[in-house]
Amino acid sequence: MQRPRGTRDFRPQEMAKRRKVEQAMRDACHRFGFGEVVTPTFEHSELFTMRSGQAIVDEMYVFKDKGDREMALRPEITASVIRFYVNEMSTLPKPLKLYYVGNCFRYENPQSGRYREFFQIGAEMIGTKNAETDAEVIALAVNCIRAAGLENFVVRIGHIGVLKALVNGQIKEKDVAAEVLRMIDKEDFDALGEVFDAKALPRSLFDKITSLAESKGGVDVLDNVDRSEATDHVKEIFSILKLYGIDDCQVDLGIVRGLDYYTGMVFEIDAPNLGAEKQILGGGSYTLSELFGGEPVFSTGFAIGIDRVVLAAEAEGQIQVAAPLDAYVIPAKDDMRKYAFGIVARLRSQGLWADVDLMRRTMSKALKYASSAGARYSVIVGKEEMAKRSVVLRDMQSGEQKTVLADDLGREIRDASKKA
Amino acid sequence: MQRPRGTRDFRPQEMAKRRKVEQAMRDACHRFGFGEVVTPTFEHSELFTMRSGQAIVDEMYVFKDKGDREMALRPEITASVIRFYVNEMSTLPKPLKLYYVGNCFRYENPQSGRYREFFQIGAEMIGTKNAETDAEVIALAVNCIRAAGLENFVVRIGHIGVLKALVNGQIKEKDVAAEVLRMIDKEDFDALGEVFDAKALPRSLFDKITSLAESKGGVDVLDNVDRSEATDHVKEIFSILKLYGIDDCQVDLGIVRGLDYYTGMVFEIDAPNLGAEKQILGGGSYTLSELFGGEPVFSTGFAIGIDRVVLAAEAEGQIQVAAPLDAYVIPAKDDMRKYAFGIVARLRSQGLWADVDLMRRTMSKALKYASSAGARYSVIVGKEEMAKRSVVLRDMQSGEQKTVLADDLGREIRDASKKA
Repeated sequence: MQRPRGTRDFRPQEMAKRRKVEQAMRDACHRFGFGEVVTPTFEHSELFTMRSGQAIVDEMYVFKDKGDREMALRPEITASVIRFYVNEMSTLPKPLKLYYVGNCFRYENPQSGRYREFFQIGAEMIGTKNAETDAEVIALAVNCIRAAGLENFVVRIGHIGVLKALVNGQIKEKDVAAEVLRMIDKEDFDALGEVFDAKALPRSLFDKITSLAESKGGVDVLDNVDRSEATDHVKEIFSILKLYGIDDCQVDLGIVRGLDYYTGMVFEIDAPNLGAEKQILGGGSYTLSELFGGEPVFSTGFAIGIDRVVLAAEAEGQIQVAAPLDAYVIPAKDDMRKYAFGIVARLRSQGLWADVDLMRRTMSKALKYASSAGARYSVIVGKEEMAKRSVVLRDMQSGEQKTVLADDLGREIRDASKKA
Repeated sequence: MQRPRGTRDFRPQEMAKRRKVEQAMRDACHRFGFGEVVTPTFEHSELFTMRSGQAIVDEMYVFKDKGDREMALRPEITASVIRFYVNEMSTLPKPLKLYYVGNCFRYENPQSGRYREFFQIGAEMIGTKNAETDAEVIALAVNCIRAAGLENFVVRIGHIGVLKALVNGQIKEKDVAAEVLRMIDKEDFDALGEVFDAKALPRSLFDKITSLAESKGGVDVLDNVDRSEATDHVKEIFSILKLYGIDDCQVDLGIVRGLDYYTGMVFEIDAPNLGAEKQILGGGSYTLSELFGGEPVFSTGFAIGIDRVVLAAEAEGQIQVAAPLDAYVIPAKDDMRKYAFGIVARLRSQGLWADVDLMRRTMSKALKYASSAGARYSVIVGKEEMAKRSVVLRDMQSGEQKTVLADDLGREIRDASKKA
């Protein structure tokens, strides 16, 4: 029996790292006043096609419900959060600050760094729309990535209003303007050129569009662009981010994905260490509630790929996790087993991670197991020690041993970890 | 757009409670030396039919993979853990102590306390088989339930060897004995009576079986049963549990579910507060690896229904969680907004859960929002305060206010929570 193609099994050593990274990002969300929501793993498939278009069906795991309704394993979680908001939270005081952690599914051929089941953490701020909101959400994103232990990452901030204003201002026929935006959205500049030729649009506009899409750099990049509400908005975001201690973001007016979906600011974070699949976060401001039958409301959010963040953190250096075991208790003989169970129960009640030999191994084999289990200490219980209500505490790293009263054992192990 | 029938959305207040209960149970697993594994949310459906029989297909969400293979959303996680063990961990030193936390799926009509997507935490100890192992696993289960905050629960421990020995000892024809055990497994004593009539089996045996299945109580219940390896084993479990400080378990020889599957000790935990759906845990010792193509190995484990544990904990009293916000920062006027962003950024960097008004509300409306958001304190930034690099700290419970230097704000809020 094999696991399904494109999925993964995670061992304890790996999960310790993943949970550490996840918990650090959760903590960042709470520090920013975001509360966790959980939504179902599968939804009516319309929920996702309404947001992303019919084409997404080919990339989803779809199945029929008992009521013959089409369900899909979620490819993303934003749509579910907004559905939840529309149905049950729309009357709560604004803004709502919500985050989620969950698994998503993508029905494509597995390839390096892309899995059929993958994990996201994301946040949605619902009910405000201004530069302060955008800055707050970007600041949270940056804090999540920093909390995960990454130092080497690039934040790129754009605004789809810049390109939209240019295209809609210069092309009078609405359907042509829409087609041009569609080509930009697809980043298909060859097809865009063909539209320009077919409709006899000015080559100067084409050049302006492609040059805009390539505008990247510091905030001064905005000085090369016609001033608009959008450029002012991005400048304000950058000035607020400084107050949050974030001063190394880039402007990238070429972030053009999801032009139908995003309404203003868009941003992405890359971890250059990851090579081709370096994007670890995508987000922006959007509206979605109306699509699901709710009142119109502005939202701003992002989603982080946890798998890639873990990869990037490992690429920068070891993710430090606690030893899987503080103490492994070994009774020297069968007579000492009951005493040993009492010792291990006490260590556990003191909050230490402790285990006891259940295989009746010889001392040397038991010590070998303790070592392979990653125990910091072995606690050896011999006849003499038992008589004195003590134990031998062995540091598995140095091999040093000393006799310790059972009453002092927990404190002794704790104090040692503080020193270390 | 509605969520799928039988599924749930969870709000922040509820998730705070659920994560607290989950984390407490995770901590218990780590104290016992168990490490977390994660396996895919869907598996080849054979994995589950091999373990549980073809009938389970009707209760699973099933869909076809691109390779036209049948997949199922997992109805339980033990099968996945053992598959993972067989494929990748079978050469690791024994015992392996693994735990998991995850969502499972059940394709049945929704009813009170039963959902189509539900959450389990469970543990599997692989590679040992003795009373000490069983006691260790039961002790972990009890520690999980205690850690979750439950005080009112009943642990029932049985051993399927008692009934099996009786039936196989008294009924010579193997196929008849197997059929009798099947009826007992189903707890269908009417059908069992019919088998006895049809095969002319002695009525005294029928009476012995039904009386065994009803044997519940203290460990002395075992004295009314013919002594066997099984009864000695259960007695030994009880004596080891005492060393772990667990002395209020019951013997229940009527736990007969999964006779094909379990090999010895079986146990269940109930939370009587929950009424009819009171079982919160089921487990025992079993073998499964051979079925999945591995070497034979003994395992002992359990699964806890997190949803029911949360319900039971709430039935016993409030689950205490942290306030969703330590401080809500309110600039009195627009001039103070930048200063306010600096304040909130600093509180967050000190690890506090802090938020700032982004709606430019009036002071009274902002205070109302702070209150509805569950903030412990509001931090009011006026012109005078800003000039003195200070703020007004308002206790949202008592309404008391005092002026505090910005440099002292974080410590002030921390110290207050220690006192509270």
